[in-house]
Amino acid sequence: MELKQAREQLMALQAKMSAYGHALSLLNYDGDTAAPAGTAENRAHTLGVLSEETYKLSTAKETVELLEFLDANKEQLTEAEQRMVWLMLKDIRFQQKIPMDEYIAYQQLIVESQAVWHKAKATSDFALFEPYLEKMFATTKKFAQYADPDMDPYDYWLNEYEPGISQATCDRFFAQLREHLVPLIKKVSEQPQVDNASIKGHFDVQAQDKLSHYLIGVIGLDPEHVGLSTTEHPFTTSLGSHLDERITTHYYEEDYTYSMFSVIHEGGHALYDTGSNRELAFTVLDGGTSMGIHESQSRFYENILGRSKAFIQFIFPKLQELFPEHLREYTWLDVYKAVNRVEPSLIRTEADEVTYSLHVMIRYEIEKAVLKGSLKIHDLPGEWNRLYKEYLGIDVPDDKHGVLQDSHWSFGAIGYFPSYALGSAYGAQFLKKMKETIDTDAAISQGDFSKINAWNKEHIWQHGRTKTPDQILNDTLGEPFDPAVYLEYLENKCKDIYGI
Amino acid sequence: MELKQAREQLMALQAKMSAYGHALSLLNYDGDTAAPAGTAENRAHTLGVLSEETYKLSTAKETVELLEFLDANKEQLTEAEQRMVWLMLKDIRFQQKIPMDEYIAYQQLIVESQAVWHKAKATSDFALFEPYLEKMFATTKKFAQYADPDMDPYDYWLNEYEPGISQATCDRFFAQLREHLVPLIKKVSEQPQVDNASIKGHFDVQAQDKLSHYLIGVIGLDPEHVGLSTTEHPFTTSLGSHLDERITTHYYEEDYTYSMFSVIHEGGHALYDTGSNRELAFTVLDGGTSMGIHESQSRFYENILGRSKAFIQFIFPKLQELFPEHLREYTWLDVYKAVNRVEPSLIRTEADEVTYSLHVMIRYEIEKAVLKGSLKIHDLPGEWNRLYKEYLGIDVPDDKHGVLQDSHWSFGAIGYFPSYALGSAYGAQFLKKMKETIDTDAAISQGDFSKINAWNKEHIWQHGRTKTPDQILNDTLGEPFDPAVYLEYLENKCKDIYGI
Repeated sequence: MELKQAREQLMALQAKMSAYGHALSLLNYDGDTAAPAGTAENRAHTLGVLSEETYKLSTAKETVELLEFLDANKEQLTEAEQRMVWLMLKDIRFQQKIPMDEYIAYQQLIVESQAVWHKAKATSDFALFEPYLEKMFATTKKFAQYADPDMDPYDYWLNEYEPGISQATCDRFFAQLREHLVPLIKKVSEQPQVDNASIKGHFDVQAQDKLSHYLIGVIGLDPEHVGLSTTEHPFTTSLGSHLDERITTHYYEEDYTYSMFSVIHEGGHALYDTGSNRELAFTVLDGGTSMGIHESQSRFYENILGRSKAFIQFIFPKLQELFPEHLREYTWLDVYKAVNRVEPSLIRTEADEVTYSLHVMIRYEIEKAVLKGSLKIHDLPGEWNRLYKEYLGIDVPDDKHGVLQDSHWSFGAIGYFPSYALGSAYGAQFLKKMKETIDTDAAISQGDFSKINAWNKEHIWQHGRTKTPDQILNDTLGEPFDPAVYLEYLENKCKDIYGI
Repeated sequence: MELKQAREQLMALQAKMSAYGHALSLLNYDGDTAAPAGTAENRAHTLGVLSEETYKLSTAKETVELLEFLDANKEQLTEAEQRMVWLMLKDIRFQQKIPMDEYIAYQQLIVESQAVWHKAKATSDFALFEPYLEKMFATTKKFAQYADPDMDPYDYWLNEYEPGISQATCDRFFAQLREHLVPLIKKVSEQPQVDNASIKGHFDVQAQDKLSHYLIGVIGLDPEHVGLSTTEHPFTTSLGSHLDERITTHYYEEDYTYSMFSVIHEGGHALYDTGSNRELAFTVLDGGTSMGIHESQSRFYENILGRSKAFIQFIFPKLQELFPEHLREYTWLDVYKAVNRVEPSLIRTEADEVTYSLHVMIRYEIEKAVLKGSLKIHDLPGEWNRLYKEYLGIDVPDDKHGVLQDSHWSFGAIGYFPSYALGSAYGAQFLKKMKETIDTDAAISQGDFSKINAWNKEHIWQHGRTKTPDQILNDTLGEPFDPAVYLEYLENKCKDIYGI
């Protein structure tokens, strides 16, 4: 094989893979947005065929030979090419270590398990889901052992979702959070609660939709390349490359801030994805480098910027214009307090900034204990409820609002949760660094995101997956990751809202 | 090769082709509906890759060998299998006769020609489009000669779009229409014009959207399998199989009947597609058998049923409910007359039932003359304008409203237009036959489409592509196709509206 030709083939292979990825993402996106309710079977047929084709392409003998040839000649490749080859070979080598029949059984398990989870959640019936969850944890553990017999299985998966992290990192991180946040939340709960009447009422969906499009413009997304739809649960997806990004929201008539912060959160993901350098499109280096860095951006825009005093002051006149009757009675300070209300609650995705990480920690502790073998699947609901009582001080009424609330385990995403909390903490440290050169409050109070976005693009977005999360953190911060910055940020927020 | 195995492979091949078809259709549908404006390049990348994969799959050595083996053993196949093999081999044999370089150049020409046509139409600049149109007609002619050197090129393409027809059929058909319709339209134009104020005004888009969903239910589409979106130009598309059908409409605030009849028209296409027998899904026999039969259904629902007295009487209370202020002043009879107003106009897609076929005839005569060599591309605008004056009595102000109005020629659809007029005429004859057993007016005046739909399903829809258009017509009508039935229908309409 000629090196020049092999390098061209590497690009052609990725272009082809991204086309299949585009089709698969679009089928799922269509299923969540425009598709009629009875078309899932039809879509499953096509998803099945195209997934198989993608799998065949990515594991074909020619593909493996190409990548191994390039790997053997890696000193003649650019850094970006080396990383492409490394990322693609990593997936192939994982595949090669899993016996084919077990891999197929696992794919089948995911499909069934998701369907059963939906039913179990709807009826709050953990016993129904239990055998699937049992198999899911067992398979996850076994696959990790196939992939790297010398590595602790949970460390293996943590490192898959957020390269560079381990239980050691997470233990330290969560211990520090627990130590500060549990007493902080207790102290908050002893204060008079802030009023949230300024965000509750009846808010016209069309006015909320106008707000969404306004926000897309304000935070600096390019509407030529970023679409907005509505779905049951908001999400962000890239179609084929960062040149076509879609975000979704959900409008609740009784609270305009749900969609408002969903749009800013998903907008943060979309800013990151669409900020990839143009030449990364149609390669495996396009888009975000890890879940943690992704959440650092989405939660940065949603919480750190979006729930800041400066931003609420800026957006308040627009809110008054859109919801004039309701907001006549309130000030921007009312809204600021309402959107920063701290209140232990049952559902992770609805949690406030301060309690959020504890929801994640509970999932982390459970995953860790199950994979270590010290917690049985059968005992998950009890342990879940015990931890919610211990850390958040609340009683879980049923498994629907408890252990069955998240979909992640039903599709095998075990080790994924910690990245949500890590991302939040990264964000706080990015803010601190950013403030060395940018007066973020002054910019935000003018609705001017240009300097902030330029900073994020320079340090984070443009690099796509060319850098690891570690490299992003080191190169951007110039100092080690320090959760104390995040804790200080949260403590200041509580001081500001509750005077403690 | 074992026959049993080959038959299974035939089904698997079609299942795979339909999955690729699903992805390609969805990419185009997304481009027309939800996609942000700047994402065409990204989508073109994926469409390019997946089209090439589809082409490779359909022309692969194994595919050809499989189909030829099955063809050699066709007496052992079911009728449906024989037809699958025949349809698939037909495409392959066409491909095999076209030199590869000419085929690739043609695909490129289509892409360029469409882009140039858009620009030429916007600026009404025929000279810009002329060289592309020249090449398009020349290529079309050459390809027909490659495919069947013994056949007249225009007959070849007419028969491609509507199997069974030829210039001989069309000449007779259009001569009969011309003979009756040209004087009829002249007579109508001498009568006082009917008032259309009952359909013109300002109509809330949300109310129009409610009307769309109501109509979908009334005509008997299954909303579990048929979705509705809005686009610049309304269309219908199947995604993967008839189990996922999408129709689109366009809302004009100044006239609620544009969208109303678009929904019914596209709804007719969707009824036909979704009426395929379940086992035809994921095979080449799924969906409609020809453009003519397809239009016979869409125009049947839109015009024959939708613009009937019975239907307007039925729908009027709903229209009053949705547009109470405007319709307070009018009766159902005002609306009935307004939606059946006959008026020679410039644009085919906006033409009324009576003048519509003459628009088509003009295109037919031009295509025929160009392919015969008696009309030069350079002289198309002049000939177009001359024919509009002769048949419709109107002056064409510019090429944008004349020869450049339709997109068909820009993507090589030469020989396609006649099916629109044939379909309209088939529909009138279907109605006559249907009336032998169903009191259609009584059913429609109750908003009850069940018997009509059952009749269409039995005779037309369920068969998908298992029957040719000829077989559908013969088996359904039990008598030859007779345009006189259509003419009588149009004459009665004119008598009803204009008293002539």
